[in-house]
Amino acid sequence: MPTYSPPVRDMKFLLNEVLDISQYGHLPRFEEAPRDLADAILEEAAKFAEGVLQPINLSGDEEGCTRNDDGSVTTPSGFKDAFDQFVENGWPLMGAEEQYGGQNLPQVLGIAVSEMFSSANQSFAMYPGLTRGAVEAITAGGTPEQKAKYLPKMSSCEWGGTMNLTESHCGTDLGMLKSKAVPQADGSYKITGEKIFISSGEHDLTDNIIHMVLARIEGAPAGTKGISLFIVPKVMVNEDGSLGERNSMICSSIEHKMGIHGNSTCTLNFDEATGYLIGEENKGLRLMFVMMNAARLGTGMQGLCQAEAAYQNASAYAKDRIQGRSLTGPKNPDGPADPIIVHPDVRRMLLEQKAFAEGARAFLYWLSLHNTLEDVSDDEATKEKAGDYMALLTPVAKAYVTDGGYKSATNAQQVFGGHGYIEETGASQFVRDARIAMIYEGANGVQALDLVGRKLAMHGGRPLFSFIAELDAFIADNGGNAELDPFLDGLKGAREALNESTTWLMENGLTNFDNAGAGSHDFLQLLGLTCLSYMWAKMAKVALAQGDSDDPYYANKLHTGRFFLARMLPDIGSHLAKIKSGADPLMAMAEDGF
Amino acid sequence: MPTYSPPVRDMKFLLNEVLDISQYGHLPRFEEAPRDLADAILEEAAKFAEGVLQPINLSGDEEGCTRNDDGSVTTPSGFKDAFDQFVENGWPLMGAEEQYGGQNLPQVLGIAVSEMFSSANQSFAMYPGLTRGAVEAITAGGTPEQKAKYLPKMSSCEWGGTMNLTESHCGTDLGMLKSKAVPQADGSYKITGEKIFISSGEHDLTDNIIHMVLARIEGAPAGTKGISLFIVPKVMVNEDGSLGERNSMICSSIEHKMGIHGNSTCTLNFDEATGYLIGEENKGLRLMFVMMNAARLGTGMQGLCQAEAAYQNASAYAKDRIQGRSLTGPKNPDGPADPIIVHPDVRRMLLEQKAFAEGARAFLYWLSLHNTLEDVSDDEATKEKAGDYMALLTPVAKAYVTDGGYKSATNAQQVFGGHGYIEETGASQFVRDARIAMIYEGANGVQALDLVGRKLAMHGGRPLFSFIAELDAFIADNGGNAELDPFLDGLKGAREALNESTTWLMENGLTNFDNAGAGSHDFLQLLGLTCLSYMWAKMAKVALAQGDSDDPYYANKLHTGRFFLARMLPDIGSHLAKIKSGADPLMAMAEDGF
Repeated sequence: MPTYSPPVRDMKFLLNEVLDISQYGHLPRFEEAPRDLADAILEEAAKFAEGVLQPINLSGDEEGCTRNDDGSVTTPSGFKDAFDQFVENGWPLMGAEEQYGGQNLPQVLGIAVSEMFSSANQSFAMYPGLTRGAVEAITAGGTPEQKAKYLPKMSSCEWGGTMNLTESHCGTDLGMLKSKAVPQADGSYKITGEKIFISSGEHDLTDNIIHMVLARIEGAPAGTKGISLFIVPKVMVNEDGSLGERNSMICSSIEHKMGIHGNSTCTLNFDEATGYLIGEENKGLRLMFVMMNAARLGTGMQGLCQAEAAYQNASAYAKDRIQGRSLTGPKNPDGPADPIIVHPDVRRMLLEQKAFAEGARAFLYWLSLHNTLEDVSDDEATKEKAGDYMALLTPVAKAYVTDGGYKSATNAQQVFGGHGYIEETGASQFVRDARIAMIYEGANGVQALDLVGRKLAMHGGRPLFSFIAELDAFIADNGGNAELDPFLDGLKGAREALNESTTWLMENGLTNFDNAGAGSHDFLQLLGLTCLSYMWAKMAKVALAQGDSDDPYYANKLHTGRFFLARMLPDIGSHLAKIKSGADPLMAMAEDGF
Repeated sequence: MPTYSPPVRDMKFLLNEVLDISQYGHLPRFEEAPRDLADAILEEAAKFAEGVLQPINLSGDEEGCTRNDDGSVTTPSGFKDAFDQFVENGWPLMGAEEQYGGQNLPQVLGIAVSEMFSSANQSFAMYPGLTRGAVEAITAGGTPEQKAKYLPKMSSCEWGGTMNLTESHCGTDLGMLKSKAVPQADGSYKITGEKIFISSGEHDLTDNIIHMVLARIEGAPAGTKGISLFIVPKVMVNEDGSLGERNSMICSSIEHKMGIHGNSTCTLNFDEATGYLIGEENKGLRLMFVMMNAARLGTGMQGLCQAEAAYQNASAYAKDRIQGRSLTGPKNPDGPADPIIVHPDVRRMLLEQKAFAEGARAFLYWLSLHNTLEDVSDDEATKEKAGDYMALLTPVAKAYVTDGGYKSATNAQQVFGGHGYIEETGASQFVRDARIAMIYEGANGVQALDLVGRKLAMHGGRPLFSFIAELDAFIADNGGNAELDPFLDGLKGAREALNESTTWLMENGLTNFDNAGAGSHDFLQLLGLTCLSYMWAKMAKVALAQGDSDDPYYANKLHTGRFFLARMLPDIGSHLAKIKSGADPLMAMAEDGF
């Protein structure tokens, strides 16, 4: 049976030592999270993740969700009870605004908590995750009345929320969507259409579900300029906040998926369902992207989560499973064989997972810190830089971390040998659950195109130049320490490749956009590796400052970082070569040749 | 619904143009396969794969195998009928010896046929695949009586065969196995023990199943030197060849696996089952490895098979699915969007699959040609070289091609976007089925260790030096053609990295074996890339010799090869750097640090 023990020590290291969030204690949100409170929250969240959510992860995968004949959906055994505890304990309110009953804590703390929940049970964590996205859209675009009506119950997760974008013929290209909205005399709309792949689209966890639905108002312009966003409650909400009649939409089926079986992925049919416009007519996509961008950081987190959970199980197995002997002589001479962790190639697989998870965790926490600073900082330059980083690096957080998460989970499964292919060990579930994060919330190829096609050139290239300047300053400020220098050298190499590839893209991508598209995947990977290289340099600096600490945590951190430098960072050169090979090798062949 | 159309054109190109097997027409086996017969066999096999096996692949995955209360196993609907046709049509007899009713055809033709069957339905193809392995073990080690008793029915697949190695506590390290064999007065043995993960272990496709079982004869030495191999029929075979009593072994459960649901992976319990020693007492492992080594080429083939089938579906989807516009202006201006194949990053994913599949196909066919030449050539130098290549490159064929197959299937699934995560498209099944091939028949890490730990040093390094000499001769013989030169340059770069890494391993791997282990994975990948680079150079040479052929096949082959050079071969440098980083980054951390 798989296990999960939240890496609280590593989380505290990042929050308190690397990012040192106490330095922001004078700012809104951060002032609500003094260190002792933050530490206590982490400890409590760890107990909930390990004690309540993880035990129903494997069983939830096996059992899956069931659509009943009346269109209702039953979640796997234990989900409802766990969800009730989740709401009663107030976990959803951590990051919510005070006016809706929230604790107003900074996202960087919330992301640590959500990492634990999603590592323990990704399918479960998606229910509140989607609700959070809907809350953000209503916060960004709702009228005061809409906010008052929906946000208190949604912030606490007493009600659920969803995002309804995809139709069978369109996902990435929402300009083609067909769902229609017909204005009614009372100001509401009748919504008709079919939406597919709706995560958490129907379930038994909450009394109501507030669907955020993209549709086209009759007579609206074609394409993306004619799409509006609507609030479509599953159950109508009366003026006094009580629940009224059932709205005319139904879950017509749930998808048969590779993974995340515990989450109900639904086809929803809207049949003149009552909906309420949110935000401006025909400007629904912009509002939906508010929701999407926040969700993308959370999706990136899912890559880390499965990597971490899979790693923990693989490393435990590698220490326990005895098989064969060390190449350099028996390490367990009294036993019939050595534990497989003595084998260099088993360690290679484990360290790839560990170095990825710890590097990605640092990267996502660091980025989410900027997300909050963009809102609350009292310094304009800090706000601008934070906004730039969020724009530039959100696609990297989403795509690089989910690609790496899947690869990590696959490596973890490999450590288990034949036992990894059997569902009971949970190794397969980590891989199958991790797989979706590369696809949804904008497939990773779409993220890469967003990065090179929009984010690189934004504000005349300011975001990337600002990031490179930060790297240069870090390198300049920290040189001369023989133990830290290899980390700085690694970072310097990555920074140079980043610079060279950016220059190449600027020189060649504007004359032929396909040159930019052709290099987009490798550029995103290269930027992701550079971010992790920066994080490893920052972590190494803190670990080295501990000198000969009795706590082996610091020495292990450095070992892991050195593995990253030796065995993961060399991919930089290969990405650079591929980017510079341009569009021709991809575009020269006619379609018939495929 | 997924489809599969066997790539007969590509197979003929390899057999007739690149490998030109007609040059061996004077040799045994090859003389049975003149070109018109070989071509006709390929066409017939294609019909059977596409018409009979592929239509029950997705349904077989969904339905799976069922263990009944009496221990019998029912395969998915349609499997029994397809298997009957398979036997009636004589497909199993293609490669079998004439004395057992076989056609005695060369393996390189058989492998093309088995590629089609395994691409169409891997779970199905495993039933005869395991039987073939058992046939080879009996051929290699059986007495004349044993051969006469079992081989005719097994060669035709009227009876099945299995390999029983793994026990719950040991897989790679068979020295620990506990199943015991007690000698009986009549020369037979009573076998008792539990075997797990037995592919095709019990099913309803054949009247009998001949299990090849590793067990320890009472009083035998501990470890690998006390293991013997036994023939344990599911149903006893009378002297006259008729079936007798049921033997005392039973399938106690079937595994709940990530994929290959159509194949019954069983736990088998032997309870004083009657078995017959095959080969010498205590030398069972050696005989089992005869079986394993042949199986490994077939397992490598499974990586190619899933890559090819997944690619076909992904490329069809990319041409059909319209979504968004080309970066360089609409390519389908009359439609609401362009097909997604206009996007460079979609082409990157498709071409990685195509270049891998075509390169891996060439490599596996080329290697299997050597497998037959080792047996039948009339030239001692050719036989020696062929044997060397089989020893050196079988682990590469197994591990490099299955790693790449899984990556390809994952890329194919990505092309499908959200639809790829839904089981009905079949994209998930390709990934889940491909996953097992990296694990079984010796996990890929074990292959890598076999390569650097045994095969490199074998005969004083002769196999690798012989391979490098062949590359050098090819480069020297074919220079001076401006279109071929880039392929030769690519090969030269790979050859140099191979040489450099080999030298590094020789200098550092003997003083510290962990240096060899640490570099094993990357060395295997580097050698795999070198093999594909050689194959692409050979294929490019043939395609270029066609000049301005009207057949676009040749131009497309060259486009695909150029993609390989520009976008896949650059990984060579990264593998080299990782190998040369040595054991320290992996071994320095104490076990507690994981």
